[in-house]
Amino acid sequence: MRKLVVLTLIAFGFCSCYAQENSLAISLQNDSIVIASLYKSALTSSGGYDNLRELTSKAPHRLAGSEGCANGIKILFNQLKALNPDTVYLQPAMALPWLRGEKEVVYIELPKGKRILLHASALGGSVGTGLKGLAAEVVEVKSFEELKALGEANVKGKIVFYNLAMDPALFNPGEGYGRAAFQRTAGASEAAKYGAIATLVRSLTNRIDTFPHTGVMRYADTTNMIPSVAISTFDAELLSTRLKSDPTQRVFIRTTCKSLPAVVSYNVIAELKGGEKPEEIITIGGHLDSWDLGEGAHDDGVGCMHAMEVIRLFKQNGIQPKRTIRVVLFLDEETHQVGAKAYAASVKDKGEKIYVGIESDSGGGAPKGFGMSASPAQMESFRQLMGILAPYDLYQLRNGGGGVDVGFLKPLGVPTMNVLPSPHRYFYYHHSAFDTFKEIDMREVQLGCAAHAALVYLIDKYDTLGS
Amino acid sequence: MRKLVVLTLIAFGFCSCYAQENSLAISLQNDSIVIASLYKSALTSSGGYDNLRELTSKAPHRLAGSEGCANGIKILFNQLKALNPDTVYLQPAMALPWLRGEKEVVYIELPKGKRILLHASALGGSVGTGLKGLAAEVVEVKSFEELKALGEANVKGKIVFYNLAMDPALFNPGEGYGRAAFQRTAGASEAAKYGAIATLVRSLTNRIDTFPHTGVMRYADTTNMIPSVAISTFDAELLSTRLKSDPTQRVFIRTTCKSLPAVVSYNVIAELKGGEKPEEIITIGGHLDSWDLGEGAHDDGVGCMHAMEVIRLFKQNGIQPKRTIRVVLFLDEETHQVGAKAYAASVKDKGEKIYVGIESDSGGGAPKGFGMSASPAQMESFRQLMGILAPYDLYQLRNGGGGVDVGFLKPLGVPTMNVLPSPHRYFYYHHSAFDTFKEIDMREVQLGCAAHAALVYLIDKYDTLGS
Repeated sequence: MRKLVVLTLIAFGFCSCYAQENSLAISLQNDSIVIASLYKSALTSSGGYDNLRELTSKAPHRLAGSEGCANGIKILFNQLKALNPDTVYLQPAMALPWLRGEKEVVYIELPKGKRILLHASALGGSVGTGLKGLAAEVVEVKSFEELKALGEANVKGKIVFYNLAMDPALFNPGEGYGRAAFQRTAGASEAAKYGAIATLVRSLTNRIDTFPHTGVMRYADTTNMIPSVAISTFDAELLSTRLKSDPTQRVFIRTTCKSLPAVVSYNVIAELKGGEKPEEIITIGGHLDSWDLGEGAHDDGVGCMHAMEVIRLFKQNGIQPKRTIRVVLFLDEETHQVGAKAYAASVKDKGEKIYVGIESDSGGGAPKGFGMSASPAQMESFRQLMGILAPYDLYQLRNGGGGVDVGFLKPLGVPTMNVLPSPHRYFYYHHSAFDTFKEIDMREVQLGCAAHAALVYLIDKYDTLGS
Repeated sequence: MRKLVVLTLIAFGFCSCYAQENSLAISLQNDSIVIASLYKSALTSSGGYDNLRELTSKAPHRLAGSEGCANGIKILFNQLKALNPDTVYLQPAMALPWLRGEKEVVYIELPKGKRILLHASALGGSVGTGLKGLAAEVVEVKSFEELKALGEANVKGKIVFYNLAMDPALFNPGEGYGRAAFQRTAGASEAAKYGAIATLVRSLTNRIDTFPHTGVMRYADTTNMIPSVAISTFDAELLSTRLKSDPTQRVFIRTTCKSLPAVVSYNVIAELKGGEKPEEIITIGGHLDSWDLGEGAHDDGVGCMHAMEVIRLFKQNGIQPKRTIRVVLFLDEETHQVGAKAYAASVKDKGEKIYVGIESDSGGGAPKGFGMSASPAQMESFRQLMGILAPYDLYQLRNGGGGVDVGFLKPLGVPTMNVLPSPHRYFYYHHSAFDTFKEIDMREVQLGCAAHAALVYLIDKYDTLGS
């Protein structure tokens, strides 16, 4: 295949070398052959899918600082080595582990000692209840305004139940997530202000199921930290219904989660050296850590594969990038972003020029376009290239792109991008035990890998983000 | 919601009534509010999903002329009635039933009477082997050219095994399907020419699994009809591997399928009368029949829902179409298209003007655009409207659209269209026992219903396909 591509390019080049200098259109004709070849390679290789199977089966539950995470780092290091880039190395960062402890026990108290067990998971970073647990009446709210209106008189000594659903009417579920996430991230401290003793949080997913979806929460200060626990959307509906008929309904919560001392861990990094401008670096990555409930397949094992497969696809098609491609598999996106911070600090210290930061952290759905945080001129420059990606259903160019980890490069003036996958199913898996390899579609992984390779190829060749 | 939309439209209309007459852009601003409302209605209603659950659970296996099909017709008739359109009626057509009979027995013969059972399904329309079955050596081919080159000397008395895979390198799996379908549709008669006694056909799906995928086959003539059976892709790989080490490998096949006398059955039709041009008819439909192996969820229960929900969404949003919307749930797309032929004949006899034929028969994936078989001017006219659909990821406009059933309207000069769903997973389900309600995603059904409603709304309002 590689030979065929090269020959075809030579033939094209021979016929059109004069015009090519003057015409983006003709140059793009040649590129469309390269991109077709990248897609063909991706769609006929199970490399990324197989690596993801290995990662998720041998190293599930990769919360930063955990044994699973350490195993994942070893596996990814070896997988990158096998792709035979110019270099593979580890970049240290101090992980701040949090341990779930024993399985949470959360139930609705019924008369005569009966109970309805709820599907519950402590939120990441939460304190535990202590071994005895706690029980109290529950007050349901959907906003901080509602909470404030209730005030200490109605909240003190109770459990605050945040039950704002992700709005299904929003076309992009990510928007619904963004609007509802405050309950999880900041709800505990806000409730504690009014004397609440714990919070229950409706899981952030856009369907009704019995998976609790965890995720990070933060305390505004360390003086009044109360336990915070996610319950499944199914259970949130159930609890809400019961509270309507009995506002004195009590719930029991027992969690033994806790934070542990910092331990050294690592980003895993690989580089394919650039031919013309090796000092300019295309950073592309996903995060190697995951929540502890699932296998971290959609979030974000598949993002690591999207980045890693760019190396395979470039090498397989004999593409020599102008710039250095640096695959960065970030430690700890989920909690404190210590990996991303260490990477950005290193870039700054060394005065490296990062041409672009590309991140894949939205799951393994089929790609539909790109997000871009860049200047209007850079966006327009990229838009002019996008026509040749239409045969691959890559139409959308959204203003705003990148991700949490490459976001730390923004203060250094780095434009950031991401491939946009179909967003509709992502939150089914997100931060839950449902995020398993079984829920990964091989073809969609392949399409994601191809889209990332095509993106890197085009923005490198056409100096889309500056010379 | 309806009130809000109406008020907002009045407000918009008041501010812009002058400009609106002169500017498509401003008119489309108003339309974008209507379309947002259609999407909101669809994304917060489980109506189509619930109807699909009822159809697939109470009336799976809806092969034309079967009891399942008759049950499906009753259910769909009642579901349409409940949507309260202006009229619901049945249109008779003669179904030509084919019966699978007993579960097929197909195995690789091993020494000492041992066997490897294969996952197999007779192809629709095939004759059976007789109760005793048959056994013979197997010769594998991937094209009619290969078969011809082998000739009678190598084929006579044997089973021809067609093993051309759907090419995974093609971005659109439908294209791979199209290129490989000849094996299933015409392979038996071609093999019979050279004296083959039966054919095995690799299932037409783009992944390796253990589901046999059936589908229609036709005999070129009735003088030499040999049995034709699909085996799963997994088994096709297995058989191919064994044949490489032992070309004398024998396979046993026993099928008891047969064709039955014609019986009367029906298309199910509902109409919402147009306000301005009731004599012009927007035909929109899916097919109510399905293969007998699965529940006919993706193929094509969901297509029926896409069409039916247009009625609900229009009524819910107080939209009065200019033209009559006629939902046609076609009988027998899968085998002889007797429903589509009866419908087209009726249209012709009555001299009805069909403004457009829209068909949904590509599964329940999230929509990505439209296919259109129309004049260049009509396509350009539609393209100008598409901008307001970009927020819903509806970007693509493909030259060529419609479907098998509305295709019978083409000779009457009717333009045909379809919504294009994501194509990547459709063939996992297609014509197999895997096509169940469990594999349907509610949100993707909702998105499909909204896209169909938006399409009908726009092409009706803007006279896209002629006055």
